[in-house]
Amino acid sequence: MTAQLIDGNVVARRLQDDIQQQAAAFEEKHGYPPGLGVILVGADPASQMYVRMKRRACKRVGLHSAAIELPEDATQEEVLAAVQQFNEDSKIHGILVQLPMPDQIDEEAVLSAVSLDKDVDGFHPVNIGALAMKGRTPTFTPATPTGCMVLIEEAGIDPSGKQAVVLGRSNIVGLPVALMLNEANATVTICHSRTPDASSYIREADILVAAIGKPNYVKANWLKPGVVIIDVGTNKVDDPSAEKGYQWVGDVDFEGAKDIAGAITIVPGGVGPMTITMLLSNTLKAAHRLAEG
Amino acid sequence: MTAQLIDGNVVARRLQDDIQQQAAAFEEKHGYPPGLGVILVGADPASQMYVRMKRRACKRVGLHSAAIELPEDATQEEVLAAVQQFNEDSKIHGILVQLPMPDQIDEEAVLSAVSLDKDVDGFHPVNIGALAMKGRTPTFTPATPTGCMVLIEEAGIDPSGKQAVVLGRSNIVGLPVALMLNEANATVTICHSRTPDASSYIREADILVAAIGKPNYVKANWLKPGVVIIDVGTNKVDDPSAEKGYQWVGDVDFEGAKDIAGAITIVPGGVGPMTITMLLSNTLKAAHRLAEG
Repeated sequence: MTAQLIDGNVVARRLQDDIQQQAAAFEEKHGYPPGLGVILVGADPASQMYVRMKRRACKRVGLHSAAIELPEDATQEEVLAAVQQFNEDSKIHGILVQLPMPDQIDEEAVLSAVSLDKDVDGFHPVNIGALAMKGRTPTFTPATPTGCMVLIEEAGIDPSGKQAVVLGRSNIVGLPVALMLNEANATVTICHSRTPDASSYIREADILVAAIGKPNYVKANWLKPGVVIIDVGTNKVDDPSAEKGYQWVGDVDFEGAKDIAGAITIVPGGVGPMTITMLLSNTLKAAHRLAEG
Repeated sequence: MTAQLIDGNVVARRLQDDIQQQAAAFEEKHGYPPGLGVILVGADPASQMYVRMKRRACKRVGLHSAAIELPEDATQEEVLAAVQQFNEDSKIHGILVQLPMPDQIDEEAVLSAVSLDKDVDGFHPVNIGALAMKGRTPTFTPATPTGCMVLIEEAGIDPSGKQAVVLGRSNIVGLPVALMLNEANATVTICHSRTPDASSYIREADILVAAIGKPNYVKANWLKPGVVIIDVGTNKVDDPSAEKGYQWVGDVDFEGAKDIAGAITIVPGGVGPMTITMLLSNTLKAAHRLAEG
């Protein structure tokens, strides 16, 4: 068996083409494009790269973007002032606070300060609260977990009645994707660092979302044939044979898994492009909501 | 093997004795007791009974209670006005909106209207959102799930590293207790009406929280020896041999389970008294927070 490869770039391109058309129509109608404001604190190279990629994607689809960059030792007041500036800026419809932030920053207070109407990352406690309750509809859902759900759909799988394992319980991916899979009627198990033997759960999974940041952690012989794998992990590992001296690998042993899984995301290029696309999509949605009520 | 019986009445009495002392000290200091405001819409007999039980418990431990009762056809505005009245009442420190409410009421809007400082039921979206995120601390946690966690602790079980199955995904019990067990480092599986074969998960569970409202649904031969069972179900079933013609049974076949489980809550008298106790405890906490900042 050879798994269907889920290429996030292809799906993202299709969705971004659509966003581009809608953004152009929005600008035509209102005289200004939908706008994203990004707040970056500190100089973490990965965070800087993510911010660059997000702003480049905005440009590509015709969204305006602005960034406020603060030093590693920024104070809580400075970060809150940056949020406030974007809250009040009528050309900014979506606000993205790049996580994680340095230790001295109270992340919850910062995320709570983002206007609910501009919370395109879906991390305002009220949006997470709505996500955690049946029958509630968050205004925006977090980008990466939403991207995971779209890819599962793209793979032709309805989660209803399926057994899903989420590996990792982070606020950014694991927990929200578990809540979304539960909402979609999967039976969800959340495995994490304190799970004695995650493989015993993974063996039963029809759907596996891996988001623990451990290179090739999930072995091929843990997998149930036909499982749909969404690999959120993007881990840099040394590889002397590679031109750059390293390569990116996921949390799942891709080479082994692709002969057993029914479908598997490529790494890189699986979930990553979807995260950005969902952010663009949420920003467009925010612009429509703010401009048209 | 005969299971340890977890008697919520005994635990609740001990905790309520403590609350009573603290409430008396509070009244001594401030000149008025901690107060709970209850809002009941409609005439559902079970809801009416719960409200009576909660108010009676307030009286027993020296808390003030007030109730606003509205008819089944109350409007959204009337319910919101009731919430507002309690929000503004300085002698009311905790507000309880008895759920479920009639269909014409937007439950989320009502719960969101409760002052965060008085959200002793823990159902404000911000509190649920905090519950759903690692590293966030809700001001108040929902009474029934918190009661479940206290009973698990009383049974001498640390959930860390354990396999937990939550049967049911309601906003009131299933989902929040799953989040709390995950936070306590259990590996949690949420089973629900769309789970094809819940027994296959239950067979592996070290901790089982049953909250689906189906009498005797969980069979004894589904249980792993030694499992700790928290049975939230309280189902009225006909029983011609009983004096009243009916009896209350849980979601788990108690008679069969007690020979296999390591510990099991009695029904009734397991989780029920804890729910009320957690509500009293949250009201006392709210009074302290509001009076002393």
